[in-house]
Amino acid sequence: MKNMIIASTSTLHGSGYLEYLLDDLAMLFKDSSEILFIPYARPSGISHDDYTEKVSEAFLKINKQVKGIQTFENPLTAIKNAEAIFVGGGNTFVLLYQLYKNNLIPVLKETVNNGTPYLGTSAGSNICGLTIKTTNDMPVVYPPSFNATGLVPFNINPHYLDPDSNSRHMGETKETRIKEFHHFNTQPVIGLREGSWLHVKNNSIILKGNLTARIFEQNKAAYEVVSGTELNTLK
Amino acid sequence: MKNMIIASTSTLHGSGYLEYLLDDLAMLFKDSSEILFIPYARPSGISHDDYTEKVSEAFLKINKQVKGIQTFENPLTAIKNAEAIFVGGGNTFVLLYQLYKNNLIPVLKETVNNGTPYLGTSAGSNICGLTIKTTNDMPVVYPPSFNATGLVPFNINPHYLDPDSNSRHMGETKETRIKEFHHFNTQPVIGLREGSWLHVKNNSIILKGNLTARIFEQNKAAYEVVSGTELNTLK
Repeated sequence: MKNMIIASTSTLHGSGYLEYLLDDLAMLFKDSSEILFIPYARPSGISHDDYTEKVSEAFLKINKQVKGIQTFENPLTAIKNAEAIFVGGGNTFVLLYQLYKNNLIPVLKETVNNGTPYLGTSAGSNICGLTIKTTNDMPVVYPPSFNATGLVPFNINPHYLDPDSNSRHMGETKETRIKEFHHFNTQPVIGLREGSWLHVKNNSIILKGNLTARIFEQNKAAYEVVSGTELNTLK
Repeated sequence: MKNMIIASTSTLHGSGYLEYLLDDLAMLFKDSSEILFIPYARPSGISHDDYTEKVSEAFLKINKQVKGIQTFENPLTAIKNAEAIFVGGGNTFVLLYQLYKNNLIPVLKETVNNGTPYLGTSAGSNICGLTIKTTNDMPVVYPPSFNATGLVPFNINPHYLDPDSNSRHMGETKETRIKEFHHFNTQPVIGLREGSWLHVKNNSIILKGNLTARIFEQNKAAYEVVSGTELNTLK
């Protein structure tokens, strides 16, 4: 019964917040008038209220009201009763830390599994994978676990960037980092480039957007999949 | 009694492994004929033995023998008895995980505090700070804590990169990430660019190399310090 958009990023270069996704979001949220927003990832440390305000402005363009989870007395029942859910980007460690602190992982998983429409961007997409071990973020807080919701049966690397052969910088490329991941973990990883997203509908997981995505499986050479590919066998 | 080189990177673009540091390493290790190498960070998942082999070749140029900690029956006494210690780069989470697994954090701290010369590069530098919460690495394994040795009283961000104003990529810059860190943590962070290192000698911590370093303190604008700056008041 799942109905999700799991997006690499909220924002494309030169375009407004969520703008490139608005047509698809109007479809995803067609039966919802109000969206529960979870601002826990706090990009640049922005407050929950300021982040919610920013998201509200974007959703006004498709006539949706937005309510921040921080305004509810009980965040657990807020998720249970939500018409629709959006988990925004920011720092994945901060997001997961706060979800665990409020004991929200099981209810989020159950609610989305039961069909409540879900949008995730960046950190909000990372937590849809099995673990956050393929996040790009800085570990500024220590969550009680790296396990995430597992709403899709693999790991996600949002903002996936191809190696830059012109770089003189000696830090690791994302491909190298994901290879390190596979020395210690078996699950596949999908590198979602900015502008790509996964549309999850019941048991189907389809790559959307104009770009290809890069799939990393343990003990296999990485490969590209084109937009429109069904990914539900990836596990 | 400390005597340490804490380097942003092992390798500069276009130059061999450790090459730019060899003169300073000959000084640091002048009284040591054998260096204990800790290869736990495993860059690209390389084996402990292969990594040790690579390091041995570099140190042959200054006539030092290298022995990997994995060849000792008891890694704890290997550290205690070492003439000199080098912790190489790779993945900081993998490194810290293995140090905790072998219960080596306290003995490493004590041994280096007592004067055993220490070289760290990249991940091996990160663990010299208070925590690894300012690493750039991917959290591919879950260590029991993010606390590190605290051999210097602040945090380190190795491979520090300035924001690229030409980038169309929407992922966070390092400066943004470190600002997020300071929403949740109070300690200063030093962004060490590739080619910079800290020379720690007793109570002195001096920035070395040709470049400036960027200092981030909570509730303060970030600022640059020039090579030669004494940083022992930064805490």
